[in-house]
Amino acid sequence: VRGEPDQPGIFTWRHHLPLLSTTPPVSLFEGDTPLLDIPELAERWRVSAAYVKDESRNPTWSYKDRLAAVAVTKAVELGSDTVVVSTTGNHGAAVAAYAARAHIRCVVLTLASVPETMRTLMQSYGASVVALRESTERWALMRQAVSELGWIPMSNFQDPPVGSVPFGVDGYKTIAYEIHRQLGRIPTHVIVPTAYADGLTGIWRGFEDLRRSGTVSELPAMVAAEPLGPYGATLAAGTDRTQIVESHPSVAFSTASPVATFQGIHTLRMSGGRAFSQPDDERIISDQTWLAERSGIYMEAAAAVGVSAGDQMGFGADDVVVLVGTSTGLKDPTSTAVRMAPVPTIEPTLPDLLAHLDGS
Amino acid sequence: VRGEPDQPGIFTWRHHLPLLSTTPPVSLFEGDTPLLDIPELAERWRVSAAYVKDESRNPTWSYKDRLAAVAVTKAVELGSDTVVVSTTGNHGAAVAAYAARAHIRCVVLTLASVPETMRTLMQSYGASVVALRESTERWALMRQAVSELGWIPMSNFQDPPVGSVPFGVDGYKTIAYEIHRQLGRIPTHVIVPTAYADGLTGIWRGFEDLRRSGTVSELPAMVAAEPLGPYGATLAAGTDRTQIVESHPSVAFSTASPVATFQGIHTLRMSGGRAFSQPDDERIISDQTWLAERSGIYMEAAAAVGVSAGDQMGFGADDVVVLVGTSTGLKDPTSTAVRMAPVPTIEPTLPDLLAHLDGS
Repeated sequence: VRGEPDQPGIFTWRHHLPLLSTTPPVSLFEGDTPLLDIPELAERWRVSAAYVKDESRNPTWSYKDRLAAVAVTKAVELGSDTVVVSTTGNHGAAVAAYAARAHIRCVVLTLASVPETMRTLMQSYGASVVALRESTERWALMRQAVSELGWIPMSNFQDPPVGSVPFGVDGYKTIAYEIHRQLGRIPTHVIVPTAYADGLTGIWRGFEDLRRSGTVSELPAMVAAEPLGPYGATLAAGTDRTQIVESHPSVAFSTASPVATFQGIHTLRMSGGRAFSQPDDERIISDQTWLAERSGIYMEAAAAVGVSAGDQMGFGADDVVVLVGTSTGLKDPTSTAVRMAPVPTIEPTLPDLLAHLDGS
Repeated sequence: VRGEPDQPGIFTWRHHLPLLSTTPPVSLFEGDTPLLDIPELAERWRVSAAYVKDESRNPTWSYKDRLAAVAVTKAVELGSDTVVVSTTGNHGAAVAAYAARAHIRCVVLTLASVPETMRTLMQSYGASVVALRESTERWALMRQAVSELGWIPMSNFQDPPVGSVPFGVDGYKTIAYEIHRQLGRIPTHVIVPTAYADGLTGIWRGFEDLRRSGTVSELPAMVAAEPLGPYGATLAAGTDRTQIVESHPSVAFSTASPVATFQGIHTLRMSGGRAFSQPDDERIISDQTWLAERSGIYMEAAAAVGVSAGDQMGFGADDVVVLVGTSTGLKDPTSTAVRMAPVPTIEPTLPDLLAHLDGS
């Protein structure tokens, strides 16, 4: 596994991506995100070292840009002028931005409940955004558009879900290549916020590439961090049939899926991994700000579930753990804001200032 | 001007930063942001090439992280346990994150009108945030805290304003070093969204370093993009006394200063630069989405003022222009959202989908 330094963004790894060698990359210089050493997290988990892979440093501030870069480039390679995506969040923003860069049309099938920030992002990038009444309606319509109009799918459109198109999932392999380059070794555990497990599976495939090529001899255990718990339930059931758990709203909305995908279960089993849920909103936001206060990293709530997953894992003292910080808290600051102390208005004197600091 | 690859973030340039060689860097791997070639912008401005330096790719998603990295490292070097900053925005978020990383206290003096997203960011990073009734009260209190308590200032605290402490401003020099490395030459013009001109001045100092060291023989013209116009007014008046213009609210709130600083006027004069204002909110948001739709880059409104500044500049056909995209639109998506078309709810059929796409 080797990079080509003259290629932009994750296309430095294009030999390992499912693209023809002649296809021009659609890139916004995604990837090459920092791996931040967080001693406070290592102490909390009682491990040798803990890192956050800060994926908020991507072009649309989430790891979805890696999928979008490869999938939109593939759509251009296939000669398509339209991509279609079912989404209420980061996934749609990323695909819309790359479609803008490629000058092709992006159709977003969303729900009326789409958060305003996400809708604004997608529309700002020029996507055509329409809402359906039901999630299953979106997938049915997307299947029709893909089969009858030849639009290229950028997300899941099967019911029950299986995950995104494989060439998009392969974009996440680059996270594994980068972690290996940055760490000089393979971590023992990689924690990934997980819904349909595109990221979990793609990162695992990247580590498999590293072992297959003889670059490394070990593989990490992949750990799924989920708000609702379908992966944990399926692993516990020990079957190939993915379980559906009870659904409820979660601040970790970007991973709040009540249903697991087979690709995710397969990855967890192959890697000897595990899955942990954290349904408590208060706890998720508390972990989000715990990390921000100690490290200067403000992750999305879905990624903060990974902190709790690490707590539940029971690591060994020699373990080296990477948490994938999939996106920024800035996409939904209101969930954090409602749990913050009000800002006091003070008199412009040092005694009043110091009194308020002591009290806080 | 040379880098040290074993140092994190902008500390790769630490020989050129005002720090002792023994001081450990406080870094979140800031800087090394992409320089994106935007053919659509080059065509609009009728220049040889146009680039956006995407500073939203920093740890707190704005270029202020470069200032904060150097200024907080300096505070630690000086043995301080508290930094203080007067801010309602990006500046405070950046300083709060770096103070968290350094494990020192950050006191933020803000106004009751601080946008909720900015307040949430600062509080998430653990800063002590208090509000004053008037902007001038903040500066007076900050002066007292600096002189009587020995707290280290991270922002302007003079009235009228002069800009931030010089060691913080020097953090912006790294933008010039990176542009030179990425472009292999010096651009003819660098457009910088400007309030108190820390960025404009720091970037200019970086280019001066490159010339002084013999790396290059030319310097760019520095162009200030401002919503209200104090730099343009001062240049037009031709005096050393900075002008105060009429104030009004602007979507470009992060640069909406009615008063220029001397450092900014000095930089514009030394570089043979100019200043252009754009007071029209509709036009600013229209330029913001114009760029997002064509390039996949969603900049803050203050940076979109730079698009208009380029329109007004009247470039030559051989010019090579860099626009500094200081932060992300994600910090204030509401300004964009109110100008977006509503999302239609459609029937789950291809004819209904296509009818809505044709109409949009």
